[in-house]
Amino acid sequence: MRPPTSAPDIVFWAEKCESKPVEKPLTFTGNPLDRASLCRANPAFMAGLLANGRMVPFWRQAPLVVAGRAGFLPFAQCEELGDGPCVLLGVLDGVGHFALDISSEETPPAGLGEFLEMRAAALILPPADAAMLGQAKALLDWHVRHRFCAQCGTPTDIADIGHRRVCPKCSAEHFPRTDPVVIMLPVLGDACLVGRNRRFPDGLYSAFAGFVEAGESLEDAVRRELSEEAGIKVGAIQYHASQPWPFPSSLMIGCYAQAVSRDFKVDGEEILEARWLAKDDVRKRLAGEMEDGIRLPAPIAIAHRLIRDWATQARLPFVREAD
Amino acid sequence: MRPPTSAPDIVFWAEKCESKPVEKPLTFTGNPLDRASLCRANPAFMAGLLANGRMVPFWRQAPLVVAGRAGFLPFAQCEELGDGPCVLLGVLDGVGHFALDISSEETPPAGLGEFLEMRAAALILPPADAAMLGQAKALLDWHVRHRFCAQCGTPTDIADIGHRRVCPKCSAEHFPRTDPVVIMLPVLGDACLVGRNRRFPDGLYSAFAGFVEAGESLEDAVRRELSEEAGIKVGAIQYHASQPWPFPSSLMIGCYAQAVSRDFKVDGEEILEARWLAKDDVRKRLAGEMEDGIRLPAPIAIAHRLIRDWATQARLPFVREAD
Repeated sequence: MRPPTSAPDIVFWAEKCESKPVEKPLTFTGNPLDRASLCRANPAFMAGLLANGRMVPFWRQAPLVVAGRAGFLPFAQCEELGDGPCVLLGVLDGVGHFALDISSEETPPAGLGEFLEMRAAALILPPADAAMLGQAKALLDWHVRHRFCAQCGTPTDIADIGHRRVCPKCSAEHFPRTDPVVIMLPVLGDACLVGRNRRFPDGLYSAFAGFVEAGESLEDAVRRELSEEAGIKVGAIQYHASQPWPFPSSLMIGCYAQAVSRDFKVDGEEILEARWLAKDDVRKRLAGEMEDGIRLPAPIAIAHRLIRDWATQARLPFVREAD
Repeated sequence: MRPPTSAPDIVFWAEKCESKPVEKPLTFTGNPLDRASLCRANPAFMAGLLANGRMVPFWRQAPLVVAGRAGFLPFAQCEELGDGPCVLLGVLDGVGHFALDISSEETPPAGLGEFLEMRAAALILPPADAAMLGQAKALLDWHVRHRFCAQCGTPTDIADIGHRRVCPKCSAEHFPRTDPVVIMLPVLGDACLVGRNRRFPDGLYSAFAGFVEAGESLEDAVRRELSEEAGIKVGAIQYHASQPWPFPSSLMIGCYAQAVSRDFKVDGEEILEARWLAKDDVRKRLAGEMEDGIRLPAPIAIAHRLIRDWATQARLPFVREAD
C-alpha cells in the first residue's frame, strides 16, 4: 500500500475511511445527523425544523426504544410527555431530530415503548441510533447538572436549542462539557498488560484509563496514568481510536504504549492486579476458547477494540515507517 | 525500521520517545512535575510539601517571571501576597510546587519580577517552566470561573489542594475542566489547505479548528468542522500530536485529513478565506524566504507544528503500512 500521492490512492484513502470496510465502527461513533451547529442560533431555521421534527424522550437518563430502534416520535405525540429541556441533535434528510427530558414525571409514560438504560440500549440498537442517543444523553445530562452559573450561582437560561446556557446576571456563557480520558494498552513484544480495577467485576481485566488533567498533553497523561496506576515506564505512544462515552460526558482516547520492560507495580488503590497476556491467549479468549476465569472487556468498550485490534492485526501498534 | 519485536528495537522506541531527539517539544507539554495525584487528599503528605514548598504567584492570569524563569518563591515570601486559591502543581526533587492567585490585589506587587501575559511568558521561558505555568494558569482560572455549584448554585469549597471543588449543600463534586479541540490540516498530494479566521490578524492563515461536541469521536469532529468551516470532504484522518492550551482550558488535538478533492467553500462566518499552499512554498515561508503577505502560525501553536512537520517530513501524514 502506497501513500496517497496519485488520484487512485486518494480515492482509496477516502473510501477506506468513509465506508469503514474492515472495522465495525466503535459504539456511539458515526452519528449520521448534520449537527447544524452554525444554524442553532437562527430562529427561522429552528422554527422550520420544529414544525416537522421528531423527538426522542429520555426518562431519568433512559432513552425510549421502540422495536429495537431509537424512539423518535412526532412532536405532537411529545407535547404532554414532560417539560424538561429540549435539545436539537441535528438534521437528517431535512428532518430535525430532538431529545426531550421527561424526568420530572413520576413514572415513565406507558404505551410508547421501553425506556432502557443507555448501555443496554446501545447493545441492541443499530450503530447510528446508538450514536444519536449517546449524543442526546450527554446533552440532557449536562443540563441536569449545570442549571446554575458556576461563576456567580444564578440559574441560567438555555440558548441555541440546548447547546449553550447563558447567565442572566453576569452574562457568562456555558457550553456542554466533554471530559477527555486516555485509555491505553501497554505492549511489549507479543504481550500486553491488562489491569483489574477495584470497581470491576471479578475476573475482568482491561486497559488502563484516566482523565486528562489540566495542562497535560495526551501523551503526558498516558505516561502519568501508567506510572501511577501500574508503575510501568513506557516509550513510544501511538494513538489508535476515540469514542464518545456518555457516562456522563467522557471522550475516550485510545492509545498503545510501548513498555520498556515487563516490570510493573500496581497502585493497590485503583488497580488491584495486573498481568501480561500473550497475544495467542488473547485471541483464544476473544474466541471463547479459553476458560480460566479471566475476562476481557465487552465489545461496546474501546478497551475491547484496543485489545482485539492489537491481537488480530499484525501491523499494530507500531506501523513500520516508509523507508 | 522494523516493528519493536526484539529487545534492540524496543530500546529504540523507548529512546525515541523519552529523549525526543528530533523534535522540540510542543509548548506547554513535558511538564517535569510529578503531579502526585494519588496523594492530594493525604493531609500528612501535603503538610510535608507545604513546609518546604515553592509557590508561583499569578496576578490576573499573568504569572510571575524572574530572570527568564518561572517565579517560584519560598512560601514565607508569599504569605502576604494575597489570599486567592492555592493549588498544588506537583513535586520535583522532593519539593512541592504550588501556584497562588493574588488577583484580589489592586496592583501587582512590586520588586519581585515581572507579571507577564501567559503567551508572552511562554515565548521566553524554558519549556519545562512554560509547562508548569500553563498547568497553573488552567487550574487557577478554573477556580475563578467555577466558585459556585453548577448543580444547585451554592458556593463550593476547595478540596485536594485545588484539584476538586465540593458543594456543601448537595455534595456534588466538581473537577477542573479540559475542553478537547480538534485542529486539522487538510492535505492533498503536495498541497495543504489553510484558512483565515475572522479573528486572525491580516494575512495569517492556519489550520482549521473547533471544539469537540457532546457525543462526538475525534474523527467525527474533524469531519464536521471541516465540512462546516471549509466545505471540504475528507477521507482518512491521522492523529499527529496534542498540546494543552490554557486559554482558558483547551486540549488541542492535531490531525491530518486526507482531502478527496481541491474543492472547498468557506463558511464566510468564522472562516473568511482559504487557500491551497504548495509544500515547497510552505518551506520557503517557514524559512522566511517568501514575502507575499501570507503569514503562517507562530511556533508556539500546534498549527505551526502540523504545517511544518507536513512540509518537512516526507513520511507525513500517511505513513506507509508494512507489507
